[in-house]
Amino acid sequence: MIKYLITGFSGFVAKHFLDHLEDVKTPAYILGIDLYAPSFDIHSFKYIHCSFEQTNLLNKDELDNAIYQFQPTHIVHLASFSSVAYSWKNPIASFANNTNIFLNLLEKVRQMQLSCRILSIGSSEEYGNVSPEDLPLREDRVLNPLSPYAVARVSQEMLSKIYVDGYGLDIVMTRSFNHIGPGHKDIFVISSFAKQLVEIKKYKHLPEINTGDLSIIRDFLDVRDVVKAYHILLQKGRKGEVYNVCSGKGLTLEQVIQKMMQILDIKVKTVTNPSLIRPSDNPMIVGCNEKLSSETNWKPTYALEQSLEDMITYWSEKQ
Amino acid sequence: MIKYLITGFSGFVAKHFLDHLEDVKTPAYILGIDLYAPSFDIHSFKYIHCSFEQTNLLNKDELDNAIYQFQPTHIVHLASFSSVAYSWKNPIASFANNTNIFLNLLEKVRQMQLSCRILSIGSSEEYGNVSPEDLPLREDRVLNPLSPYAVARVSQEMLSKIYVDGYGLDIVMTRSFNHIGPGHKDIFVISSFAKQLVEIKKYKHLPEINTGDLSIIRDFLDVRDVVKAYHILLQKGRKGEVYNVCSGKGLTLEQVIQKMMQILDIKVKTVTNPSLIRPSDNPMIVGCNEKLSSETNWKPTYALEQSLEDMITYWSEKQ
Repeated sequence: MIKYLITGFSGFVAKHFLDHLEDVKTPAYILGIDLYAPSFDIHSFKYIHCSFEQTNLLNKDELDNAIYQFQPTHIVHLASFSSVAYSWKNPIASFANNTNIFLNLLEKVRQMQLSCRILSIGSSEEYGNVSPEDLPLREDRVLNPLSPYAVARVSQEMLSKIYVDGYGLDIVMTRSFNHIGPGHKDIFVISSFAKQLVEIKKYKHLPEINTGDLSIIRDFLDVRDVVKAYHILLQKGRKGEVYNVCSGKGLTLEQVIQKMMQILDIKVKTVTNPSLIRPSDNPMIVGCNEKLSSETNWKPTYALEQSLEDMITYWSEKQ
Repeated sequence: MIKYLITGFSGFVAKHFLDHLEDVKTPAYILGIDLYAPSFDIHSFKYIHCSFEQTNLLNKDELDNAIYQFQPTHIVHLASFSSVAYSWKNPIASFANNTNIFLNLLEKVRQMQLSCRILSIGSSEEYGNVSPEDLPLREDRVLNPLSPYAVARVSQEMLSKIYVDGYGLDIVMTRSFNHIGPGHKDIFVISSFAKQLVEIKKYKHLPEINTGDLSIIRDFLDVRDVVKAYHILLQKGRKGEVYNVCSGKGLTLEQVIQKMMQILDIKVKTVTNPSLIRPSDNPMIVGCNEKLSSETNWKPTYALEQSLEDMITYWSEKQ
């Protein structure tokens, strides 16, 4: 039976990944590891069997022990400090909790000579400074990371390649673009906007929100399409290859806010707050998903409006 | 007065850097930090004033304290686990002792808002897999690191760029090619050959040495030319720029061994030892030093034969 070790188990993406495994009705054992216990009931699934172990991935002994005891056939490495803004404030912690934890994991798999497939999650931020003629971004484009977080992800990807080519590990890599969807924490921009707009509507707060630069263009993909891509890459992705996981469409943050205002039927003024502007930022990131879709038949299924509605519903129910 | 903080103070390059500073007769304060005490007398200099503090760069408090107390005007970051072979055996330690220690250092300078110039040493290994038409390598070539050590150095360089562009630090970067010269440890290939050949000559050992792949081509630069380049880059290098530090000439390891046999007037058989072949390696690395020489007037001054003779003399006196 398939045995998935999932790092970052208590996070946003992991829960959606579990829901997807349950949807496809294939029995599997899951060991989830995370610094914090999950907020969902791990025994609520019918087809998959989950257990959880509180694990600090920076503590090599704890991580080693989890891998050694569980002997996974697949590792889905979702653990990450994935906020760009956080990385500018805490570059050391960002680097450690992206690159170093991943290296610890790879090294244990190598030392154990464990035969397992590893999914290494990267980020569209790795592309960095791009010009309009580079869009949509293909996987062979040169990487110019522009933030501590982006550097950490490029480092992780380079290490993956070394462990494939030099040590023979079976790793498939992604560059995942901006996720949206219900359950996303409000430290991420779209979810933060959704939460604030819901509060304004509900509590009749001052119709005004502070924002960073709203002209930046990003490629948003529903987390439920993201996890389908991860599942299919674990089965069909080619060892040592990198795949964009993205919608292929670009929108400004301004356009996304406008769509949410339409859904909520409110008008809110946006005020640029200089403290929310990052030291350097990519004006536009839009990916090409042709490699993923042509090799695996994966296609995005959620329209942007659906994702935004579900996020608004999520925050409405939480308030 | 200029105040140099030198990391990796007890290593091969630092001693040559100090000798160079002494040669140019410019007074300076030096604080050397290293895990181990230096084997030379730090009070033997006339123009420069050295002190030493035993410091573990992985211990952020110790490093922070050294920087805070000394308030350097220049940081020469020589500390590194710079062996490619070691990095294949100990990728975690290699990464920590290249990338993480450097990030610790940058972060302290940022937090203190210390106005100082930092020299970040990188490696020709960063170029990785290159084809003959790419030679000699120029700084704008895409990097394809092929070993854990090379990845660590590319990560360090990317972090340097982030700290220049995002936080405004004053960092000049190098990609330093293979060093040779008296005092180099015998974990490095040319020095190891020199030592073995000297032993064969002196003690009439079996005239045979075990080697890795002798057909690989490298660009060797005498450490005394390397440190001159570092000194000049600290004065004239442009902030945020990367400079190759190299001879511009490529030789196979076989050619270098032959030259040393000529100097020693011996014939020795080379036997390929599969355990010395690396998982992946770059067949040829030769750099172009035009950027460094045109911007700073630096030129290599030691002929290869001179460097090899001095290495042979060094090992002859040590035996």
